[in-house]
Amino acid sequence: MKLGVCYYPEHWPREMWADDARRMVELGLSWVRIGEFAWSRIEPEPGRFDWAWLDEAVETLGAAGLKLVMGTPTATPPKWLIDAHPDILAWDVEGRPRRFGSRRHYSFSSETYGRQSARIVEALAARYGDHPAIGAWQTDNEYGCHDTTLDYSPNAQTAFRRWLAARYGTVEAMNAAWGAVFWSQDYPSFEAVDLPNLTVTEPHPGLHLDFRRFASDEVARFNRIQTDILRARSPGRDITHNFMGFTTSFDHGEVAKDLDLSSWDSYPLGFLESFWFSEAEKRRYLRQGHPDVAAFHHDLYRGVGRGRFWVMEQQPGPVNWAHYNPAPLPGMVRTWSWEALAHGAETVSYFRWRQAPFAQEQMHAGLNRPDNILDRGGEEAAEVAREIARLGPLPSAAKAKVALVFSYEADWRIAIQPHGAAFRHLEIVFETYGALRRLGLDVDMVSPADDLAGYALVVAPCLPYLETPFLIRLAATGARVLFGPRAGSRDVSGKIPAELPPGPLQARLKLKVARVESLRPGVETAVRLGETTFQARLWREDLETRLPARATYANGEPAWVEDEGWSYLGFWPEADLLDRILTDLAREAGLETTPLAEGVRLRRRGDLTFAFNFAPEPRAAPAPAQATFVLGDAVLPPGGLAAWRA
Amino acid sequence: MKLGVCYYPEHWPREMWADDARRMVELGLSWVRIGEFAWSRIEPEPGRFDWAWLDEAVETLGAAGLKLVMGTPTATPPKWLIDAHPDILAWDVEGRPRRFGSRRHYSFSSETYGRQSARIVEALAARYGDHPAIGAWQTDNEYGCHDTTLDYSPNAQTAFRRWLAARYGTVEAMNAAWGAVFWSQDYPSFEAVDLPNLTVTEPHPGLHLDFRRFASDEVARFNRIQTDILRARSPGRDITHNFMGFTTSFDHGEVAKDLDLSSWDSYPLGFLESFWFSEAEKRRYLRQGHPDVAAFHHDLYRGVGRGRFWVMEQQPGPVNWAHYNPAPLPGMVRTWSWEALAHGAETVSYFRWRQAPFAQEQMHAGLNRPDNILDRGGEEAAEVAREIARLGPLPSAAKAKVALVFSYEADWRIAIQPHGAAFRHLEIVFETYGALRRLGLDVDMVSPADDLAGYALVVAPCLPYLETPFLIRLAATGARVLFGPRAGSRDVSGKIPAELPPGPLQARLKLKVARVESLRPGVETAVRLGETTFQARLWREDLETRLPARATYANGEPAWVEDEGWSYLGFWPEADLLDRILTDLAREAGLETTPLAEGVRLRRRGDLTFAFNFAPEPRAAPAPAQATFVLGDAVLPPGGLAAWRA
Amino acid sequence: MKLGVCYYPEHWPREMWADDARRMVELGLSWVRIGEFAWSRIEPEPGRFDWAWLDEAVETLGAAGLKLVMGTPTATPPKWLIDAHPDILAWDVEGRPRRFGSRRHYSFSSETYGRQSARIVEALAARYGDHPAIGAWQTDNEYGCHDTTLDYSPNAQTAFRRWLAARYGTVEAMNAAWGAVFWSQDYPSFEAVDLPNLTVTEPHPGLHLDFRRFASDEVARFNRIQTDILRARSPGRDITHNFMGFTTSFDHGEVAKDLDLSSWDSYPLGFLESFWFSEAEKRRYLRQGHPDVAAFHHDLYRGVGRGRFWVMEQQPGPVNWAHYNPAPLPGMVRTWSWEALAHGAETVSYFRWRQAPFAQEQMHAGLNRPDNILDRGGEEAAEVAREIARLGPLPSAAKAKVALVFSYEADWRIAIQPHGAAFRHLEIVFETYGALRRLGLDVDMVSPADDLAGYALVVAPCLPYLETPFLIRLAATGARVLFGPRAGSRDVSGKIPAELPPGPLQARLKLKVARVESLRPGVETAVRLGETTFQARLWREDLETRLPARATYANGEPAWVEDEGWSYLGFWPEADLLDRILTDLAREAGLETTPLAEGVRLRRRGDLTFAFNFAPEPRAAPAPAQATFVLGDAVLPPGGLAAWRA
Repeated sequence: MKLGVCYYPEHWPREMWADDARRMVELGLSWVRIGEFAWSRIEPEPGRFDWAWLDEAVETLGAAGLKLVMGTPTATPPKWLIDAHPDILAWDVEGRPRRFGSRRHYSFSSETYGRQSARIVEALAARYGDHPAIGAWQTDNEYGCHDTTLDYSPNAQTAFRRWLAARYGTVEAMNAAWGAVFWSQDYPSFEAVDLPNLTVTEPHPGLHLDFRRFASDEVARFNRIQTDILRARSPGRDITHNFMGFTTSFDHGEVAKDLDLSSWDSYPLGFLESFWFSEAEKRRYLRQGHPDVAAFHHDLYRGVGRGRFWVMEQQPGPVNWAHYNPAPLPGMVRTWSWEALAHGAETVSYFRWRQAPFAQEQMHAGLNRPDNILDRGGEEAAEVAREIARLGPLPSAAKAKVALVFSYEADWRIAIQPHGAAFRHLEIVFETYGALRRLGLDVDMVSPADDLAGYALVVAPCLPYLETPFLIRLAATGARVLFGPRAGSRDVSGKIPAELPPGPLQARLKLKVARVESLRPGVETAVRLGETTFQARLWREDLETRLPARATYANGEPAWVEDEGWSYLGFWPEADLLDRILTDLAREAGLETTPLAEGVRLRRRGDLTFAFNFAPEPRAAPAPAQATFVLGDAVLPPGGLAAWRA
Repeated sequence: MKLGVCYYPEHWPREMWADDARRMVELGLSWVRIGEFAWSRIEPEPGRFDWAWLDEAVETLGAAGLKLVMGTPTATPPKWLIDAHPDILAWDVEGRPRRFGSRRHYSFSSETYGRQSARIVEALAARYGDHPAIGAWQTDNEYGCHDTTLDYSPNAQTAFRRWLAARYGTVEAMNAAWGAVFWSQDYPSFEAVDLPNLTVTEPHPGLHLDFRRFASDEVARFNRIQTDILRARSPGRDITHNFMGFTTSFDHGEVAKDLDLSSWDSYPLGFLESFWFSEAEKRRYLRQGHPDVAAFHHDLYRGVGRGRFWVMEQQPGPVNWAHYNPAPLPGMVRTWSWEALAHGAETVSYFRWRQAPFAQEQMHAGLNRPDNILDRGGEEAAEVAREIARLGPLPSAAKAKVALVFSYEADWRIAIQPHGAAFRHLEIVFETYGALRRLGLDVDMVSPADDLAGYALVVAPCLPYLETPFLIRLAATGARVLFGPRAGSRDVSGKIPAELPPGPLQARLKLKVARVESLRPGVETAVRLGETTFQARLWREDLETRLPARATYANGEPAWVEDEGWSYLGFWPEADLLDRILTDLAREAGLETTPLAEGVRLRRRGDLTFAFNFAPEPRAAPAPAQATFVLGDAVLPPGGLAAWRA
Repeated sequence: MKLGVCYYPEHWPREMWADDARRMVELGLSWVRIGEFAWSRIEPEPGRFDWAWLDEAVETLGAAGLKLVMGTPTATPPKWLIDAHPDILAWDVEGRPRRFGSRRHYSFSSETYGRQSARIVEALAARYGDHPAIGAWQTDNEYGCHDTTLDYSPNAQTAFRRWLAARYGTVEAMNAAWGAVFWSQDYPSFEAVDLPNLTVTEPHPGLHLDFRRFASDEVARFNRIQTDILRARSPGRDITHNFMGFTTSFDHGEVAKDLDLSSWDSYPLGFLESFWFSEAEKRRYLRQGHPDVAAFHHDLYRGVGRGRFWVMEQQPGPVNWAHYNPAPLPGMVRTWSWEALAHGAETVSYFRWRQAPFAQEQMHAGLNRPDNILDRGGEEAAEVAREIARLGPLPSAAKAKVALVFSYEADWRIAIQPHGAAFRHLEIVFETYGALRRLGLDVDMVSPADDLAGYALVVAPCLPYLETPFLIRLAATGARVLFGPRAGSRDVSGKIPAELPPGPLQARLKLKVARVESLRPGVETAVRLGETTFQARLWREDLETRLPARATYANGEPAWVEDEGWSYLGFWPEADLLDRILTDLAREAGLETTPLAEGVRLRRRGDLTFAFNFAPEPRAAPAPAQATFVLGDAVLPPGGLAAWRA
């Protein structure tokens, strides 16, 4: 368990560097990330490299005892490069080149940019690959951020056509897979396929799904150009990429195959403001963040990283980029840090060492203020460092007993044909995560391709495509399994399966979905479970089955059916019904639940239990009477935490 | 009274066709529409026609005893044609070509496409024009759908300039007609006229109105290319086009001049979700549709078709294309079918035979599920077929006693200068229609060009342009007449008439509109009628007149004035006031009204009265005690109907 | 104190001109503005001038005794000119040329258009420069209206690069000033700088600020082309420009340096509908306008005009251009006119003489209806003329004792990095203005560059950049001074000052802003002032200071601090708190306040006090018992006024 920080020596006078390094170490930091936006200073003119400043920065930081994460600077190709090669630019969905002037303005499909990226990474790796201070590498920065995965440039069009040809072999096979006959959308050749933008009404979902897969593959391919070089030139160092939160536009697992560990950038307040949360939630969790947002991503990226993850950028104070940017509660930066560690983060690295007094992020706080006074976030980081030291090594977190299935491709599938505009894969999975966590459960986020052995309960709230191998592996676990609506509702190409939804799941659960409907916000439909009538929303299916119903609709028809421990929901439940369903299933799976007070969440590492309070009021720590507190005590302050051994 | 269905043999294996045909007949269907999106299969490569499959489909369906509507496939020009002739594409209002990848991607003004359309229609008509199974033709599909009437391509620009030259003769005449002197908008020549998009602020309303007329004329001209060929090649067959609901972007009456009958596509639930209805209405009528939507269009398209109309596509279950897509109540498909027949539809044709498992509409229900099991909509269609057989021929509907005036050009005029953003012609007419129908009245929708003889009451709620010939014909009827605000407020070119509004109506009603104001939603203004104070909204006019006031504003000034049976409203009323005004006028016109319970509507065919219940609760059928029910009984279930002879 | 009117002889038959002129004089009008949109009639073909009609118009109006404001017609270059020189067109932020077809379609940076503008102005000035009827000139029309200040054309790009080169000398200086090192945004040369549109995420704020300054300078430069010609050709005439309300996209003070007086176009009802006011305010002030909108602009433009201003266009009835266009209350046009005169307007000129029956503004009322009957606005204008005559010369308004600082550049700075999306400079200043005015105070709107001597209280609610010379001049006044939050938070280039905010203000007020946060609408934070707890919103700062606190946050930390009469607010107050703060400061500054009833406002000219009532109910005039009324009496009717000597 280490702490780190992101640092931009190129933004500050050289005279400050040694003192900065000394103070980092004093504060208890071990890692420092540099370089990831510095291309214009590393190579100020075509082919002329200015290594002097970076050499000195690396030496200075290393000499202070810090380990470096060196970032490749490919998120920010400099102006001279763009002007020499305008084909580097990505195009937006409106059909226009996205111009230089901020960042991430490149096309993943630009062959020119592939070569240029390789050239700069090669140069960096050649110079620092075996430098003893370099402990790890970060490729690029926040792939997909600012809606940059999908590119509608001529480069992308050419590459997409090649990708399709490789996937299908013949255009007839492609047309058949999509059902291109509909509306005479047959393509005479791969070269005739256009990108799915600027069509009169929605594009063909088969083409659209392949375009999303292609775009995701392009990210992984681009990243691999860099990791291949770094592995060759800098053996023994971990390679990572800093993923962004709430980003589903490419398959992070595919990118992570070429990484040693995943990392992500955790901005709880910016995320609360920017995403789907209600006005009431945005007010209530204003300075703490939503109770499930950081934990959800910790568990997601721990899975993406096959068990290993960092927080590469931890919010240290107010950010600059949301519509509104409140300050965290005092103590919140400490709480977020411990939450990450409790969920298994190897390192928590703060963004950034010192608030920059200029440019787009000048209103983004750092551990230090622009006048180099240690800010509140810096004080809290130091406190965490002291606490880490005091506690010594923590037990490892065991694999959780509950697996929650998230799938990037499922997210694209739902986005392409939501049927109900408010239905979103990420949100459905997130709601399920929240319900499990309100029961005090530890959760592993898994992809359908992951090993599922050992789980007692597997929840797949939204998996429109089910592969039989996945179902076989799932059956082998012996776990209780819950499928949400739309499971198995599509085949590999996006078509409705011949046997109707839930497709191959019918081999295990004898039911057919006879009819579906999507419901607008404000419309509910009754579901009877035991003696209680709850409400469903968003989605409702008529199920054709003889399986026993665990819950029924108002008309008495089955709404939730089960067979030998596997069950299927024909609707999407309101929160209280979801809590009830998961409570029942957890009990049946032999799991102990701890219904938690609003805003409180738990996480275990071995015999250590952490409790976090995201409510703006104090809460009792849900600790047994005999608990021995190692952090905090029996009262969790607003935004506070405790940890105990029972 | 026949039933039919839309069928896509090209989507299904040939082995299924014969069985499909057999089951259609068994179900009680007489008509089957095919072909309208099949260009890529009819002509898979330039000039190479594949007739084999279509021949077989026609033979198979015909052999089963079905009559065919053959659709021309011009709504979906295939990719090879677009790639060979990119000038076929329409351009959007943002100035970009609308790309291949869905449908309706062509420019009505493309001369290339005119030739290509003629070529494919000629080929189809030559092959099937005299085939005995072919009973009718449908041109293209849903002109104007997906906002495709207005085209901003270079083709459109060239054609618009020609159209202007033909209309005005000299550019001086055009400049004068528009008042182009304003803001130095004089054009030096027809060739200098641009389309009205991408201007700094709103374009000139004179130019804009002519552009809307031109665009409408282009649709009719394009359609006529096809009807000319079909008449020559396929004598004795009805020619129709399937118009879409809520589409006002071209004058349907002009297109229908070249058709034998009109038809339209009725999707009550999709329309409820997609248009201006309140949240409360969207929840209340969620699974029934708004009580007036289908009937409004039946009456509108009956008028457009000079008395003859079909429902070419009837919603059979959930659709795919609205933001939210609920399932109809059980029985609703039957009710919609009978509603159409009660309003005079010759045929109700369901869309589609079987839900397609692929492409954009794969979530659109059919009479059969994708697994070929008859779905609920199919069962209800069969019930309707049995009921039609049981009842035998129904009496014809008499011409209604109430005419409601709707004008496509009026809709464009209001859209170009609404003055109040919430003021829309279609909505004003629709509100009036609803008020008349809540009084139990049958209504004919008429255009100002229609024959008006025989009506007892003519309501023209929104006619900004009044031609004197129309007023003379109206006077000749002896009917009571109500004009809404803005009547006669513009001349033919969109200018305010020299004598002020209501322009030529002043010859019959001595009043001038001295001042108008538009009112934002939430602002009301009091209107006193008899002893009661009601509210007006949206619009208010100061009337300069000595005519007696039937209603007054709070300041005592006249708000509704009348002279010898013609009256003029200087405001737009809230619903209760509108009901009151129309109740009074109907009584004075000698019409019997039947104020109906919420959600209930009536429609007569001869001595037969139909009642429909769109409320989600049961309602008493407003039938006399001695009524003999031929359908249903004295209680209308939710979404149900009854019919009786009194 | 004169009245005038805007007139378009080119819209009407020549036979009407003499009668129009006669009736203008009869009505009591002295000034008539003509010509500003007439280019296509002055020069119907390239190089062919048609002076005959304009000569006759000038003669006719002059002969009737009217003085003319001649407008240069450059807001509407005609079609033949655009077709000959398409590079005249401006480009929108989406990267597209803005087409001919309305007005203001030119690029300020087009060299072609600079030459063409000079040519037409030269021609006009040569013909009428010394004509005795010409009393003044107006350049162009409403610079910036329809979002036309910012231009993204190639012309603008070239000119911007030149502007940068002139400002910075070397590209290294520019990169350093901006902090372009961030995200590798260094530019290799001035020629490499792009405009700040179509970037992936927000553009660099340093570049963005310079682009806004450049765009503002371009307006002034364009205007100067015209004023240079007019001064040379038409000596002794006032030159003005008619600015638009709520327009902050260029520095009006810079343009006004080349003018003799400023003028502005006052449309109180259109502004209420179009800007940020609440639904409740839009309903309450529906037919009166917001109580502070016209006065705010009068005081602002009086400052811009260095004491001299006109209302060039006064709303005379309903306008056409807002989403909803209600009619003013009877009497409102008179009240608006007197309000302008009370605030020091030299002339109030109504827009327009007669409602045009055609084109974009055909629904815009005039003093006369389209049928040439005098409309209500005309009657009220005549009443004002009679009252002016009756009252004789009024005393001059003294300089106010309160100065409120507004800065165009401050507005751009906040817009570029608002940090909280609802934080807007204009709105903050406007709220402050309203609070001062509710206290019955007269207010001068000043820019930081203005002379500040003589004020007792200076309020600078939002000045992110503070120049030391401004602070020195401010100190020299001895006034009480209040700074709002964000004061001094940026340096000249947009960077955070090295000493932290409030930057150079720290020399006078010993405090540092340690941390800021922006708050979403609905979030408040408590501020304790004396015994009362109020609420702040939008913004909150932690202040590091030993200065005594006049108000504190809930945690006891200082929220409002003062030192020797200067004070600093670390938050933005709710309205009641703002009222309280300003009441206290006014008292301390020795100013007498008159808390006014809702909707009532005061304004003094010498010993004359005017009171205006914008409430829809009558109000008592806040006059002393011994007051002698010269207009109205002790009861202010809805939308009415009174004036008295005490």
